[in-house]
Parts: sequence; C-alpha cells; structure tokens
Amino acid sequence: MRTFDQFLEKARELTDIRSALSVLAWDQETKMPPKAAGHRARQRATLAAIYHRKLVSREVYELLESLEQESLDEFEASSVRELRREHAKADRVPTELVQEITEVGSLAYERWVEARERSDYGIFEPWLARMMELKSREADYLQTVETRYEALLDEYEPGMSEQSLDEIFGEVRPQLTNLLRRIEESAVSKTIRPIRGDFPFKRQENLGREVLTRIGFDWDAGRLDRSPHPFCVGLSPLDVRITTRYNVNDFTGSLFGMIHEAGHALYEQGLDSARYGYPACDSVSLGIHESQSRLWENQIGRSASFWKYWFPRLPQFFPKALSNLTLDEFLLSVNQVRASLIRVEADEVTYGLHIIMRYELEKALFSGNVSTKDLPSCWNDTMDEYLGVRPANDRDGILQDTHWSQGLIGYFPTYLLGNLYAAQFLVAARKALPDLDAQIEAGTFSSLREWLREQIHRYGRQYPASELVQRVTGEPLRARYFLEYLEEKYCKLYQI
Amino acid sequence: MRTFDQFLEKARELTDIRSALSVLAWDQETKMPPKAAGHRARQRATLAAIYHRKLVSREVYELLESLEQESLDEFEASSVRELRREHAKADRVPTELVQEITEVGSLAYERWVEARERSDYGIFEPWLARMMELKSREADYLQTVETRYEALLDEYEPGMSEQSLDEIFGEVRPQLTNLLRRIEESAVSKTIRPIRGDFPFKRQENLGREVLTRIGFDWDAGRLDRSPHPFCVGLSPLDVRITTRYNVNDFTGSLFGMIHEAGHALYEQGLDSARYGYPACDSVSLGIHESQSRLWENQIGRSASFWKYWFPRLPQFFPKALSNLTLDEFLLSVNQVRASLIRVEADEVTYGLHIIMRYELEKALFSGNVSTKDLPSCWNDTMDEYLGVRPANDRDGILQDTHWSQGLIGYFPTYLLGNLYAAQFLVAARKALPDLDAQIEAGTFSSLREWLREQIHRYGRQYPASELVQRVTGEPLRARYFLEYLEEKYCKLYQI
Repeated sequence: MRTFDQFLEKARELTDIRSALSVLAWDQETKMPPKAAGHRARQRATLAAIYHRKLVSREVYELLESLEQESLDEFEASSVRELRREHAKADRVPTELVQEITEVGSLAYERWVEARERSDYGIFEPWLARMMELKSREADYLQTVETRYEALLDEYEPGMSEQSLDEIFGEVRPQLTNLLRRIEESAVSKTIRPIRGDFPFKRQENLGREVLTRIGFDWDAGRLDRSPHPFCVGLSPLDVRITTRYNVNDFTGSLFGMIHEAGHALYEQGLDSARYGYPACDSVSLGIHESQSRLWENQIGRSASFWKYWFPRLPQFFPKALSNLTLDEFLLSVNQVRASLIRVEADEVTYGLHIIMRYELEKALFSGNVSTKDLPSCWNDTMDEYLGVRPANDRDGILQDTHWSQGLIGYFPTYLLGNLYAAQFLVAARKALPDLDAQIEAGTFSSLREWLREQIHRYGRQYPASELVQRVTGEPLRARYFLEYLEEKYCKLYQI
Repeated sequence: MRTFDQFLEKARELTDIRSALSVLAWDQETKMPPKAAGHRARQRATLAAIYHRKLVSREVYELLESLEQESLDEFEASSVRELRREHAKADRVPTELVQEITEVGSLAYERWVEARERSDYGIFEPWLARMMELKSREADYLQTVETRYEALLDEYEPGMSEQSLDEIFGEVRPQLTNLLRRIEESAVSKTIRPIRGDFPFKRQENLGREVLTRIGFDWDAGRLDRSPHPFCVGLSPLDVRITTRYNVNDFTGSLFGMIHEAGHALYEQGLDSARYGYPACDSVSLGIHESQSRLWENQIGRSASFWKYWFPRLPQFFPKALSNLTLDEFLLSVNQVRASLIRVEADEVTYGLHIIMRYELEKALFSGNVSTKDLPSCWNDTMDEYLGVRPANDRDGILQDTHWSQGLIGYFPTYLLGNLYAAQFLVAARKALPDLDAQIEAGTFSSLREWLREQIHRYGRQYPASELVQRVTGEPLRARYFLEYLEEKYCKLYQI
C-alpha cells in the first residue's frame, strides 16, 4: 500500500465527518424543529471537535511527513499540499476553542434569528460579543500572516492579503460611488416601474426549476428547499443542495436567488466526484465560489440576451401578471440601481459598497476601534456615508446578515472578490465562445457551463486562486474588468 | 469533578455521534438525492466506526471500572449499567465489521428499493446474502447467550430469550389462526364495504396533523415527512421525526400510519430531555417502543370510542367522500380481518402471523436450513401455510420489508411483542383511568398520554423491559391480555 493511499484513507475520513457536519447544518436551517437547537449545537460541536482532533493527530502529521518522499501526480500533490496547510493551521488552535466556536455559533445563530424577527439587536449583542472574543482568540493562535484579521480572511480566501484588499477595494469604491451618482441623476432612472403582482410560491418554484434545469443543475445530485437565508451546500459533488425564499409580490428575488445558488451548485457538482475525499476535490476559495454564482446571477441572469429567451415565456408561469411590462421596461426593472438598505437585495453597482462597508467594520471590530455595543450606530453612520441611506431599525441594518452569528469573520470580502473574478472570467469565456450571446438568446447554456467546468470546476484546489485566475485569463486579478462591465452595461441601460 | 461527570461527558459524545448518524439516515430516506447514495454510505460507515472505536476505547473501559466505587442515584446507576452492557457487547465485535455492516446496509437498502420497484428479488439477493454473512459473523462474535440468533435479538429486545419467544408465539399462533377462521366464516365479514374515494394527499395530511396534535405530538420538537417506508426516529427528545406515505383512494392507511408513528414519537418526546446524553435516557427495548405505537394505532385509533368523536368530523377534511358510510360500517371497514399479503397493511388478528412467519424464516436462515436463494419460495410456502394466501410476485412477498437490507435481523419479533405489551399496559391504564372511553369519545387523550409518560416514557432505560412491565402491570408479560382483547373486540364486531 502506498503511503498516499493511507493518507487518502485518512483524508476521506475527514471529508466524511465534514460532510456529516454539513448535513447537520443544512438540516438545522431547513428542516429541524425549533426546540432541537440546543442539542443540535452539542452534536455539531462534538463532530467539529472530532474532526479537529483527527486533523491535528500524530497519525496525520506522520503521514504528511513521510509523503515528502513519495512520487505523486499533480492532483495528489495538491491534495497533500492542501491537507498540510489545513493541518498546520488547525494545529495552532486548541480543540476546545474549535468546539466552543461551533457550539456558540450554533446557539448564536438561533439568537440572531430571534433578534432579527423582533428587530432587537440587544438580544443578539451578548452572543456577538462572545463570538468576537472567541474569534479574536482564534486569530491570535493563527496569526502567522501580517494582521490578525488576515488570519481569519485566509480561511475563506487563502493567499489574499489585507493590503491587496485595501488596494482593490480602494480602486473600486470611488468608481462605484461615481457610477451610482450618474445613474441616480439620469432621466431613465426616474422612469423605472417596479415589478409588482401576485406570484404564487409554487409557480415561482416551477419557473426556478425550469431555469435551473436549463442551466444544468443536476436534480439527481442535488435539491432545492426553502430557508430564511438562502445558501448552497455541497455535501459531496453528488449531493449539492440549494435553498431560496419567496416574496409573493415579486418573483425576481427568488429567481435570481435560485440562479445565484445554482451557480455555486454547478461549481460543486463540477468537482470530480470520483475523487470525493481528496483534499484537492474542493472549491479553491470563497471568492472563486462567489464568482460562479455572480456570473450566473448577474452577468448572465440579468442580461438582455437572457431575457430575450425567458421574458416571452413568463406568461406560462404567471398567466395573469406582467402583461403591463415590455421587455425593455422589465430589463430596467431587474437592473434598477439605487442606494438601499439590504445587501442581498442590492444591485450590481451598490452591492460592492455594502461589502466594503462590512469589511471596514470587521477590521474596526478586530482592531478594537469599535465595540459590539457601538456597532449599530457605527453601521448606520457608515451606510449614510457610503450610500446616503440610514436603516430605521436593526432588522434592516445590523441584523440583516447571519454571518457574524456563526463566526464567519473575514467572509464578506469574498463576495466582492467574486464579482471581480466573475467579470474577468466572462471576458475570457467570451473570447473562447464568440457566439455566447446568441446561445443565451436561444436559452442554451451548455457551452458556457462546460467551459467553466473545464477551465475552473474540475480542478478543485489543484491551483491556488491566484494561479487559477492567471491560467484561465492570462493575467492576475484586476478590478478593471468588473468596472468596465458595469460602465458599459449601465451607461447603455440608463443612456448616460 | 466526579468520575460520573467525566463518564457523562463521554456518554454525551457517543449520543451526539449516534444522533448525527440518525440525521444521516433520516435524510437518506426522506430528502437525499439519489446519486448521493454511495458517498452517504461512506459517511455513515465512517461515523459508525468512530462511534464503535470510542465505545470500546480504553478510556470508556477505565471510567466504567472506576465507577464501581462511586455512589450514584438510580438513573445514574442505570446509565452506567446500560453503557457497560453496550461496551461489553461492542468490545467483542471488530470495528471493521461494524463499519462494513453499516456501509453494506446503506448500499443494500438502495438495491432493495430498486429490487422492490422492479419486483425482482434477484437484484437484491446477492446483497442480502452478503448481509447475512456479515450478521452471522457478528453473531459469532457476540454469542454469549444460548443461540446465535438470540445474540442478535438481544440488540433489539435485551433480556428476551429465544425460548421465551418460542413459548409466547407458540401460544399465540393457534389462537390467531382460530380467531381468523371464525371471523372469515362469519356472516358479518361478507358485508364489509371497503373505503374507496378521492382523498387528496394534502387533506389526508391535514387530518393526520389534527389528530396528532390532539394526541399530543409536539410539533416544535418534531416533524412529519413522506418516505417510502414510514418510520419514527428520535434524534433527541426534542427532535423526533415521523414519516408517512399516502394512498389517494384510501385515507385510513396514512392516518393509522401517522397515529402509529406518533405513538413511537410520544415515547421519544416523553424521555427526559434534560437528561439527553445519559445512556438511560433512551427507549428500553423495541418491543416496549412498539407497544406505544400499537396502543395508539390499534387499541385507541381503531376503537369505537375514537371514531365516535372523529367520524362526524371527517367531512371537514373530505367534504365529498364517505357520505355513503355509516359509523358502524366505517368501524367494520377499518377493522376488517382477512388473510392478506402485506404485513404493514395487515389487521390486528393476522398481523401476528406475519411476524411469527418472519421469525421462523430468520431462524431458518441463521441455522442454515434455508439459503437466501431459496428464500422467496420458502416465504411463499410459509405464507400459504400460515395465512392461506400466496404472493404473485416478489414485491408483494419477500421484498415488502426493508429490515433485512439494513441488517436488522431479530427485529421483527419485537413487533408482535409490542402488541402483547400494549394490551397488558392498556388493561392497567383502564384501571387507573376508569373514564378513559368517555374521554376518548370527547376527543381528549391527555390523561392517557400523561399516564403513559408517567408510568413508562420518563423512565427511559431505568428498568429493563421485564421489570418495567412488572412495575406497571403487577405481573410479567403474558399473551392472554392481547388474546382476550382480540377475542372481545372481534367477537362483538363480527357477532360471533
């Protein structure tokens, strides 16, 4: 037996435990009865501790050491590299802290749900404070990089530095602000009519399922459910689950949400299922993950080409609604740009400002410049400064996102990175597929999906994110593709 | 820290892993996409192996040893006794075999589903043969009791001997056969009109939910889903899930199924949730478990008192159907006795014969008197002998039950034991609650539910099954209560 096979056996065990943890998390957010939260928190913490202990075990360490000598193919070598990286990081953090973060995260999530329902940050604040304290301790243990914040960021976007983010976001922010101002001042922006109607949930779901089938979501290797906060989870490349939520007055929220999550899901389903359990058979970073969802949701899903096919088909799903809108009016409506309060409902232009704001707040929390008690007022002031709007309550402000409740600090920046990666990838895809728009106008997505699978998905973690971008697009990540995409699309739409 | 607290910490970890395993199993049977089966089998096998290794670990052994000296209350002492028992049994079986049984069970289940759909035992036979071989090896390791079969039986009905079963079933079988013959010969049995109509699934579900709410199922600590094979699983006393299946032409199958599973669920929800993780906070045996489901399904759910309340309310759920039936006709219809092919659809009289037949076949398989290849013909011959009917295909015969696919050998006898326990318990309940029938006629079930909780549920495994029966009813398990119940009920219904 090769040492690599012994290593793989261990790695597969770790993958199985992580998958089980993901099943428990998916279940908690979609199916679990409310009283079960306390016991579920224990169960998740127990599995997380088992995972952690196995990851940092002497056995894994020795396998990693002895693999230095073995000859490996590229995918095997990257699997060893990835587990070595994960092992080294985990080895710095005590199992008890991992267990506590998991348990507190599970309980804090329930308090966040309650606080959000009641729009009362006070219910959630002590839990957030506790979580921030735990994550600070984790960052202290992890800190091998420049800053404590960067130690957490590395969990979601390996290899990305705080300095790079400052530079990229520094370039993006003024241009978004500028484009937002020009759009808001345009004559066209005053003419946009909102989509309002009666769209029964079941019909919204039917439309979503049809679009997702066309895009290539494999229903035999995944499912769609409802949850308060939409998400995608890959339990294995053959079990990828997405969720959505419905608003009876506007079907576009659930539809774009489903396309977004399906973009994530295509990535997970596009991993090599025969290599389930290899550490490299995993998404490379959250930024790359988000590029897949944003590409499908925004660059494809909100494009004129896309709706040339789908708009005439909407009456099949909603026979009574929408008859008062033309295709052009509809397109403007689903691309309406305006400063607003809720990140997940934000348009492509203002979305980045929501992210940069969270990035700044996270850094301020971590450096101790802001306390969890002061966070709501700080949130509201920054909203005012960046977007010129101010939440009237906690629900529409500080309580809108679930991430911090679960200890996901350093996660938000990957959302904006995703937009940048997506734009750069699509420029490369268009070069390779010159008739892409014609295909999309015909309701066909297979060549784009296969290009993404071939260029990105199937590699998993074979290449780090920076190297993957270089290989696929021929250059490192640049903000200009995203900014050019926005400029071109919105100047045309808003005639500016 | 008391040694017991260290012990409890370990026991809770084991409980958490077992709960996670149950979530994976529930998910597989209700939600999991089909392609995921292979990876899920791995995940379950990995967790089962982790559970087994922890259970037989030196640490658990030493804790159990050192607890010999500690002073414990009754619930603590029984928790130690239960884990000691489980540890001793598990210690005899190699982890690799446990892992293999779990993995093969998960895959064999999928093959059983396919074989059943196609009504082709040949698809399933090699998997059953493999499972029987694995379970034989397990029984060899476990055999400290009289027979190899008894070693497996002990897993489901601790303390029950093969000899006792032979005696009890030997007493029951001729009386069931005799009662069946008299009913079949009665004039009344020729007049029964079947329930046929159009009962939309959603309305069946609504009726079921209303009945279950009245019975006392806690929806905040449980849920109801659909699955091919109805079941109940307790992930903790605060997370108890049941499933059902619907037949559009007859609502009674799903309704009695839901009441049955709710009976199981009340037991699980009635355990002391504050003691989640104590080894004694668990159901005492499958026979006792089944007594709770059978008591609610048959002795309450199919009684005249029950329908005096519910029959007049059926039109609220099914306005168009059932108008041609009187209450008496309806009661006869839901208590129709006749020899039939499918166990889960069998009436109270013939049900026991289905069980005794499976018990005999399991013993024959285990003693090597029958091979898996010969099983279908042996099945069909025994059906003929016991019930006078013969399956026309595998689907309605050998493939109807899922149990063997998952390695559940020695499980079936507990179903009939459940009927016997139930009858004996209800005689005791009636003594304590003299106006029980009047309450049921008024749609009120709380005093019966609380009596069961007080007398049985809350104790968990504090007392072994035999001791529990003695405490609750004042005597050991006797078949006569069940036989008397049948005799009285059916002689009245069928005027014999």
